[in-house]
Order: sequence, then C-alpha cells, then structure tokens
Amino acid sequence: MASEKKTLSLKKLGIDTYKDSVIYMRQDCHICASEGFEARSRVRVDHGGRSIIATLNIITSDILGPGEVGLSEYAWLLLGASDGGLVTVGHAKHVSSLSYVRAKIYGHTLSTSQIKEIISDIAAGRYSDIYLSSFLTACAGNHMADSELIDMTNAMVEVGKTLDWETSMVVDKHCVGGLPGNRTTPIIVPIVAAFGLTMPKTSSRAITSPAGTADMMEVLAPVEMDVSMIKRVVKEEGGCIVWGGAVSLSPADDIIIGVERALSLDSESQLVSSILSKKIAAGSTHLVIDIPIGPTAKVRSAETAQKLKKYFESIGEALGLKVRVVFGDGTQPIGRGIGPALEARDVVSVLRGDQDAPQDLRARAITLAGCVLEFSPNVERGRGAEIATGLLNSGQAWDKFQAICRAQGGMREIPKAAYTHPYTTKDGGRVVSIDNRRLALIAKLAGAPQDETAGIDLHVSVGSCVHKNDVLFTIHAQSPGELQYALDYVSEGNDVMVLEE
Amino acid sequence: MASEKKTLSLKKLGIDTYKDSVIYMRQDCHICASEGFEARSRVRVDHGGRSIIATLNIITSDILGPGEVGLSEYAWLLLGASDGGLVTVGHAKHVSSLSYVRAKIYGHTLSTSQIKEIISDIAAGRYSDIYLSSFLTACAGNHMADSELIDMTNAMVEVGKTLDWETSMVVDKHCVGGLPGNRTTPIIVPIVAAFGLTMPKTSSRAITSPAGTADMMEVLAPVEMDVSMIKRVVKEEGGCIVWGGAVSLSPADDIIIGVERALSLDSESQLVSSILSKKIAAGSTHLVIDIPIGPTAKVRSAETAQKLKKYFESIGEALGLKVRVVFGDGTQPIGRGIGPALEARDVVSVLRGDQDAPQDLRARAITLAGCVLEFSPNVERGRGAEIATGLLNSGQAWDKFQAICRAQGGMREIPKAAYTHPYTTKDGGRVVSIDNRRLALIAKLAGAPQDETAGIDLHVSVGSCVHKNDVLFTIHAQSPGELQYALDYVSEGNDVMVLEE
Repeated sequence: MASEKKTLSLKKLGIDTYKDSVIYMRQDCHICASEGFEARSRVRVDHGGRSIIATLNIITSDILGPGEVGLSEYAWLLLGASDGGLVTVGHAKHVSSLSYVRAKIYGHTLSTSQIKEIISDIAAGRYSDIYLSSFLTACAGNHMADSELIDMTNAMVEVGKTLDWETSMVVDKHCVGGLPGNRTTPIIVPIVAAFGLTMPKTSSRAITSPAGTADMMEVLAPVEMDVSMIKRVVKEEGGCIVWGGAVSLSPADDIIIGVERALSLDSESQLVSSILSKKIAAGSTHLVIDIPIGPTAKVRSAETAQKLKKYFESIGEALGLKVRVVFGDGTQPIGRGIGPALEARDVVSVLRGDQDAPQDLRARAITLAGCVLEFSPNVERGRGAEIATGLLNSGQAWDKFQAICRAQGGMREIPKAAYTHPYTTKDGGRVVSIDNRRLALIAKLAGAPQDETAGIDLHVSVGSCVHKNDVLFTIHAQSPGELQYALDYVSEGNDVMVLEE
Repeated sequence: MASEKKTLSLKKLGIDTYKDSVIYMRQDCHICASEGFEARSRVRVDHGGRSIIATLNIITSDILGPGEVGLSEYAWLLLGASDGGLVTVGHAKHVSSLSYVRAKIYGHTLSTSQIKEIISDIAAGRYSDIYLSSFLTACAGNHMADSELIDMTNAMVEVGKTLDWETSMVVDKHCVGGLPGNRTTPIIVPIVAAFGLTMPKTSSRAITSPAGTADMMEVLAPVEMDVSMIKRVVKEEGGCIVWGGAVSLSPADDIIIGVERALSLDSESQLVSSILSKKIAAGSTHLVIDIPIGPTAKVRSAETAQKLKKYFESIGEALGLKVRVVFGDGTQPIGRGIGPALEARDVVSVLRGDQDAPQDLRARAITLAGCVLEFSPNVERGRGAEIATGLLNSGQAWDKFQAICRAQGGMREIPKAAYTHPYTTKDGGRVVSIDNRRLALIAKLAGAPQDETAGIDLHVSVGSCVHKNDVLFTIHAQSPGELQYALDYVSEGNDVMVLEE
C-alpha cells in the first residue's frame, strides 16, 4: 500500500487523559478498515520524525471530519503535534518486553537485559496503562529479587538524563513518606548548604500523600526548572529544592508513578528503585534515608523498616551510592500543617526561629541534617546535630533558604484557603493516638495537593489534654464542595483521634 | 450544595473506548472546580435512576459546550443515556474492595465475602481498566488458593443470570483452548442431542485465539439470543450453540475477559473460574473438559494439565458439578482451517461426512462426544465413541445440526475472504513440527476473529512430505493491509513449520 494512503490530518480535540496516549479515529476511516483496527487496538502514530504507540478510540460522531484524526493531550505533547499537521498510522509492532512481564507474573527472575527492555519501553510510552498496572502489580508484593531491583534502578537511570557536579561529594536526604507534615527537607537543605556541602535536592510530587516536598516548596518558590537553571542555583547557593520530574531524571519512574497513584500502590521494591534511581541520576554520592515507623505511617513495623534499610544499603552499595538509614517516630504527624501551604508555613516558622514553631519538626530536621553533615570528613560522628542546631539558631539557615528561593526565581507569599472549618470534640480527655492515614485522606478529600492551600491544621498532638468543644483540627479547602466532602468523611464516623478520659 | 448545581446536559460524542466507562467534562466546568476533579479522577455519574463510576477526561476544546458533558459509548449504554438528558456528577465513594486486591498482591488469602465484594464491584463497573489489570495480575501466576477459586467461581455465578432446565441431567463440554482449529463443539452438540441428552451449549468468543466457538458458530447461524430464545431452541432440539455473553451468565467474567485480552493474559486460576462459572450459571450438571497438550498449545506440559485437571475436578465437586477431564494430542492444529469461516467449513464437512473431511477433527469429536454420552446411565463406560460414530455416519447428527441452526434463526452460507495468499516452501522435506502459537498469531494478524473470513488454511500436517514450491498454507484476509501484515510476520523469519530432509 502506498504510504500516502495512511496519512491523516490532525485535529486538536483537547482531551486530557493524564499520561495515557490515545488516538481518536473515525469509524469509517480507511485506515481502520484496511489495517483491521478496533477500539482498544494499540497503534503506531508517526508525526514529524517522532513515533509513539497509542490506544485507539473509535469516533462514531462528527467531532472528527473525514480524513481527520485526534490525539489525547499527552500524545499531542509527545509528538509535538500541531493542528492540521499530518500523521501516519499503522500497526504497532508487538512489544516483546511484555512477555517478560508475563514471566514475572509467573515468578521468574528477570535478567538485566529483560529489565532494561521493559524500562526502556515504558520510558518510550510503549506501555498502555493496562500494561503498566500489570507490571507494577507483578513487581509489588515482594516479588523482586535484589538483582532485579539493582537492574531496574540502573535501567531507570539509563533512560533519563543524569546530572554531574563539580565536586566529589554530593549529599542528599530522602524521607520514605507516609507521615503527614514531615517536611524536613526545606529545613535540612539550607542548613547543609550553609555548612558548605553541596545538596542539589530534587523532590517528587505526591504519589498517594496530600503533599510531596515539591508541592510544598512550590508554595514558596518556583520548582520547575531545567538542568542549566538548577546548576546555576546550586553553583550560587550550594543547594536547591526543585521538582525532579521537570528535568527528566527518571522519565520511566514518572510514568510509573502516575499509575501507582491511580492504584494507590506504592510497593517496597518500586519505592527503593524509584528513590535510588532519582538520586543516582541527580548525581548524589551520599544519601540519608529517613524512615518514620508507626502503626499508621507508611512503614508500620520495625521489620518492614529493617527490610527497606537492607534494600537501600545493599542496592545503594551495588550502584556506588553511600546510604545511611535513620529510623524515626512515625506514630503521629510532625509539624501542624498537612497540605502544601500549611506545611510551608511550618517550615518557614522553624527556619525563622519563631517562638511558636513546631518543635517536633525542628528536632527531626536537626537530627537528619546532623546525619547528612556527618558525611563530611570534617564532622565527627555524633557531632552533626550540634552543628546543625548552631546553623539554625544563628539564622544562617534562614538566610540560605531565602537565598535559594531567590535563586530559584523569587520567594512567594504563602496563600490562605478560601474556606476553613474547625472540627471540635464532643468529649474531653487525653489524645492517645492519631490516625495518620485518615488525616492524609481527609487532606486529600479537601483538595490537597492539587489545591495548595487545602489540607489540615492540627491543634493537638498525642498527649494533649482537651476539653469538650475544643478544636482538634481545622480543615482548609479552596471550594465548598471539597470542604464538605472532607467533612462528610469525618462525620461518617471515621475517627482520626482516640481520646481517653 | 444544592443538587441542581451539579446537573449537566448529555452530549453524544460517540467515543468508543471498548468496555471502559469514561466521562468527558469541560475544564471550566463548575463541578470540576467545586469537587476538585482532575484528569483520571474516578467520578460517580447518575442518570435516570442508574449510577456508574467513570474515569474523567478533561476537555480543553469546544467539542463540549458550557454545561455539557460527554460519555464513552460503554458508559452511555450502561446509563441508558440519550442526547440532552440530564446527569449529576459527584465524587465516587472509595471502592473498598480495592484494599482486598492490595492484600492479594501481598500474598494474603481472601475470604469469601472479600471475593464476593470484588466480583460484585467488577460486575457493577466500579473497577477501571487499571484496577482490573492489577486484580488479574495479582490472581495470575498461581497465587489463588483453592478456597479462593471456589469463592470466585461462586461469586461470578451469583452476580449474573442462571439458567434452569426441565431435566435433571444437563451435559456440557468445554475445550481449554490453544489449539487452532480444534472446533469439536458444533459436531459434539448435534451428536449428543440426536442421542437424546440435553446439551445447551453457551460458548465464548476468542480471548487470545483467532476464533472462539461462538465466533465460528456465528458464521453458520445467529448466536446472540436471550434466555427465552435459548430455552425454546433447547426445548425443540435438545441442544444449542450460542454465545454466553449475550445472556449475562457471568457479566463479571465478560468484563474480566476484555482486559485479559488486552493483556494477553489467561491465567490458570482465572481460566478454571471463568469456565466453571459459565457452566454452572448455564445450569450444567455434567461436564467434559478437553485439554489438548503440546509444546505450542495453551497447555504445554502434562504437569500443567494435571494441575488443571485437579482444579477442575475439585472445584467442580465443591460446586456440585460432575467434571470429567480428557487429555488430547495438542502437538498440531486439528482440522485445516484456522479462523471463524474456515473452521466452520471443516465442521460442516465432518458433519456431512464429506470424503475429504479432516479425519483428525472427526476422530477427536467422536472421542469427546463419546465421553459426554457416557454420563448417561444408559451408556456403558467405554461404549460412548461407538454410539457417537453411529450417529455421525447415519446422518442423524448432520440433520440435528441443521435443525439447531434453523431453530437459532436460520442457517447461513459460509463467506469467503476477499484476499488470499498461498505460502509456498523453498525447500522440500518432511514436516516434523508446527508452531501453533505462530499460526494463531498469523491468523490474528490477518484479521481473525473480527473478520470472520480471515485466517489460515493448512495444506499439510505433521508427517506430510512436501516438495519445493508446494503450498504449506494459504492466508485469508478481508483487507490488503491485514494480508500484508500477516505476510510481513512470516517473512521476518518466524517459521511456523520445521521441515527435515
């Protein structure tokens, strides 16, 4: 068949499917007939030298004219498409790495080259959401061997950009999430940078939590910047706090995270691989991992924490990264705010040394910053926290933070939510436990992290004594619908705190 | 919020997504803003007393006007929607059975009520394709306990219709696929019905094969009929050969099969559950299971076959179904045609007793019909095949088949493909093996089963001696594109037959 027969003209339908490439073709399109395409066929789409695989949706109405073809916004972006541009459409070659996914489902250990092929296909957009979901599920549930995790981490680094720095020691810190409000990074980076170490921090947005560090930092300064901008910031200030996704450090991981989010699945192996791939790609040489442990934190038991520690250390070592794992108390939220803007407020108050700054957040940041500082040959083991405290108390860390914000594009005012609702207690007593998962869910129902002002402001912590009609927490939301939805959840009897007389 | 604020007007966009419920809403829609929806949010859609959960796609163009909302064709069908009709849209309640899917991923055994909830949510369309893919993957790879399989099978029966018959013995036969052309059902049913047993056969369409029995039978007679029509046919003729999906015998299974097809995943546990749920729902009391074994068949080893046998027998027994498993030769295709119309031609030639009818297909049908007949208290064990042969040779089976076709709506002529291409050998020699999987793939690339005439016609079998330039097989296709695509695969060096001098 002559190739011109397969050419169609692009029409912008403006359909945002998130990160799923979809192509829309008319039912009577000659290509559908001659190639035998049907709804949900995976097809190859070429435009201007680029090529993607997309899932076919068939159009039976006139939103497309004869000879026209539409794309989802994601596919449009990947192809660099423009209205009226020409595309060719054909059968997608069988994605052979899918047979390795099936092997994994049946318990086989995958080889280095098999994993490399899977990750490379994912990064190239060759996996539909259905395939990604299957791959993630097959890898979850502790089904990955150490060798597979190492290979996967390496493969994720290889398909993306990597950063290199003009120094032999590049430090980093990462928290294995699950603890609302645990926003120590923006405090640690300025402490460490003020000391003189290099800490180019690339953070992620939330996967299943109400806010990622990048979401929170974006409240205070721009976080989406390209590699040259990041390098300039780090050269000037010794540190940065930016979103990792904007620099394509681990494009496969960014695609994977989208589906993990939809599945609310965040498996241990994927977690380690995701974190270490981003750190290695970011050029880190020394890394502190913070694992809060608690019954309603992401890591619930010392056993799981130990397993993660082993994974992080062994895989880090296999990939030339020095990792130190620090366990912490994960029984209750750290700080008072949950959600981007409310967490940003806590961070700033600690850095400024405000009298009413949350002391738990301050203490945790000092502990972790101390661990990072101890990577320096000039800091004795056990003396890091002391040095960190000094840098915080002297205002040097606050100065450095403001300088970093300015270097990233200018510091911003923290916005406030349009709607708030104080949640009061009907009983008095002592707070004996707080359910982190339910708090996180309420903050998400209220709109976090999409709405930066949304979330929860806690007025009590474990051990607080409260009286009848005291406010336990305030829900913040940007719309009445979301405020109501969060309230509905609480009023359905989902207690977030247990009180005892 | 007042409920009228959440009302939107339906516009038919005519977007066929296969069985995925999608809702299209404008970016500036007040509901998106007030409810905090984003692309890929799962939302609840209500219309005329019906309710579904759909995945949100955001529209940034003018294909929807202000106040308008669109639905994928599947969602449109589920809601019984009409242009201009009103829908309300709100947050979808958290689907709590998803936490059981996560438990399964982590190796937990699910309880009866947990499995029931999952299957009931699936049947109600509450699982997106991403969730279905995850659930299927978690169950695949031999991760299901016997108790889970029994529960799942039961649950699939319970969410659908069930048929009952006016007789205490209702026989059935099912082949665990993977062997191209193995189309014995339409031969067995008329033999058994001619003998006087009741055999209301509900068949499936292809999952990963080039043709299911329903696809093949549809070439010869209508197969989509409701329960009352099926009952009438069976009352008149003692048997039928219809598509099971049209009568909602196992609606959860129908949804699951759609995603399995996209994944090319057809796990053992899912297989047993899928088959038995449909048989029990169809009111069967006695069932023969045909398992062809061969290196390129679906079941490759005696070990897997034994495992399936154990599953079928034990789960059948737990659910009150008497199952007899028969193993067979799966080393090469049975019959000559692969694809709906070509298989129909083979079936008719065996029933008519044509001189050149494929003898392997005839022999296999007799063996299996014999096993079914032996369920009758009037047939001695070991004498079934002899009786079956008599019914075939006397023309009684052929008469019965034509009567069944007439009762189902009228017998049809077998159509021929628009394009054919004979594939010749460059070498002479003896055929020592045939790759069933590659044959099946070629038939699918040629358009089977969507195009009923598409497929492969084999001219040789294992043991045949061929000379240079002899035709090994002919590819049939309905379009030049598909013919070419099938040929491309063969010419890429994917040998389907091994010849030896």
